[in-house]
Amino acid sequence: MSKLYCGVDIGGTKCSIALIDAHGKIIDKIYTCAHIVGNEGDLVSCVTQNIRDIIRRNGLHESDLPGIGMGCAGHIRFRDGVIITTSNLNGFKNYPLRDKVQSNFRIPVYLDNDTNAQALGEHRFGAGRGFDEMVFITISTGIGAGIIINKQLYRGMTGTAGEFGHTIVDPRSELTCTCGNRGCVMACACGMALPHLFEQKLREGKKSILELPPGFEFREINGEILKKGLDMDDPVSKEVILDSGYYVGIGIYNLFQVLNPPLIVLGGGLTNWGDFYIQKIKSTFYDLARDMIFDPVKITLSEIIGDAGVIGAAALTLD
Amino acid sequence: MSKLYCGVDIGGTKCSIALIDAHGKIIDKIYTCAHIVGNEGDLVSCVTQNIRDIIRRNGLHESDLPGIGMGCAGHIRFRDGVIITTSNLNGFKNYPLRDKVQSNFRIPVYLDNDTNAQALGEHRFGAGRGFDEMVFITISTGIGAGIIINKQLYRGMTGTAGEFGHTIVDPRSELTCTCGNRGCVMACACGMALPHLFEQKLREGKKSILELPPGFEFREINGEILKKGLDMDDPVSKEVILDSGYYVGIGIYNLFQVLNPPLIVLGGGLTNWGDFYIQKIKSTFYDLARDMIFDPVKITLSEIIGDAGVIGAAALTLD
Repeated sequence: MSKLYCGVDIGGTKCSIALIDAHGKIIDKIYTCAHIVGNEGDLVSCVTQNIRDIIRRNGLHESDLPGIGMGCAGHIRFRDGVIITTSNLNGFKNYPLRDKVQSNFRIPVYLDNDTNAQALGEHRFGAGRGFDEMVFITISTGIGAGIIINKQLYRGMTGTAGEFGHTIVDPRSELTCTCGNRGCVMACACGMALPHLFEQKLREGKKSILELPPGFEFREINGEILKKGLDMDDPVSKEVILDSGYYVGIGIYNLFQVLNPPLIVLGGGLTNWGDFYIQKIKSTFYDLARDMIFDPVKITLSEIIGDAGVIGAAALTLD
Repeated sequence: MSKLYCGVDIGGTKCSIALIDAHGKIIDKIYTCAHIVGNEGDLVSCVTQNIRDIIRRNGLHESDLPGIGMGCAGHIRFRDGVIITTSNLNGFKNYPLRDKVQSNFRIPVYLDNDTNAQALGEHRFGAGRGFDEMVFITISTGIGAGIIINKQLYRGMTGTAGEFGHTIVDPRSELTCTCGNRGCVMACACGMALPHLFEQKLREGKKSILELPPGFEFREINGEILKKGLDMDDPVSKEVILDSGYYVGIGIYNLFQVLNPPLIVLGGGLTNWGDFYIQKIKSTFYDLARDMIFDPVKITLSEIIGDAGVIGAAALTLD
């Protein structure tokens, strides 16, 4: 039987536990939302139980797996396996999640930031295969990056390298991020920024042809609604999407100048806006980089099929 | 006798050739300006002749040295030893400088970007000793960075990683860089930007108490003049220095989020503005980074004594 790998993706609304094969294909997966209402200890029990279940129902023993990889949003100290802070779950400040889960297993347990895990998954199984260096960027509710250098994740001092979303691309922006700063990539371009961007356009007197239900509030604006707007040629939706692409494009240009990678892979929900969006990101990048590109830079979409979070988490156990 | 290392720093106005010892101390040095008026071949002859001279007059043979390290401003393809472009010297587009010099010596010759070389020098002999990761930033006529990861220079795909000066920190800025873009760190903060920043302040109606000679033109404004202004408490000079510090601070914050290094070392002529300037860089950084710093980040000045360019170039031959 081909070797299998176990990944756990701990999100704010759901937790996925999966087994993947050596090609990154999901063999079996369990979803649970039970951890949302509980405390830290409940999450450990929930994760432990589901890992045991998925091992058992696939006729495996713990020792058949090289380890357990966990990905979690937030600031994660990989070396120590600690959640420093996460906005996804209540509590969990400086919580040693890895060691807590480890105490229930004999195989090694790893904990990393979810975007780092996805970057590794992309490198091992997706668009990054064969590259020594790459940057993976996820554009979703938030925005983050994972950096591969010399075929390995580059994590920096604390483990928080790749916090691309918090790099500042427009200090004069009115848009403020959850981090408190104005004009970082997240403030200007992520899912959380969309309501503010949309409202801004309307305040400027622009008219949307989106049919918004009675009692609609701006905070309900999300990527899916704007996708509908894009499909019906709504000028406001399109402007918001172009704004997001513009700021992501500047951010990618900055990454290019600092890291000079051969490959930048884009993933996350907002890439579902498709070509209209991706072309804006690329044109912003190329307009800025112009004659400062001396070797081909590939900007491409994620090639991970299925749940990138859990596949990335499992990839943490590969080496 | 202690081992010696040979470095060559090829600048726009002068070329330095030196021998340094294992502690980074300059043992002997030759200056020349002869290369400025010549073509590419003249530079090769000039460098070759001066290396031979400095070897001979120190009673050495070529084989006593592990190699020859050369640093040059511009886009350098380290792997191939090629100057892709440099604004310091005329001509020199895609010029294989390393191989041309190499043809005159049996010991290996290396060519890298001058800031990369300085970063390596800083890591081996200066403030970076003992750190696995660091970023060195030079703030001078231009602005650039050299990145050390896992005790080695990180050069990226082409060799142009660390082009920190071209990262965009204020796309709404009126200031344009030689690269053609608005609002990159260089456009807003480097020596070349000072005349524009100064003129901008006067246009806004601010009054300088600097005594500028008759026939003075703004393009003559440089770091030294502003240092005089700072010392005499000139409000315009101080504002320009604070502006530069603000933008460098944003840029450093962005580097921190992406690379999460434990150490950032500042070098280059404009750091001579001293504490007033460095404190603005630091306060901008800490105001932005606030509660996103989980381990101490050291921001400090270069500790290289003497000619950082030539010491860095020699450091290329260390390993």
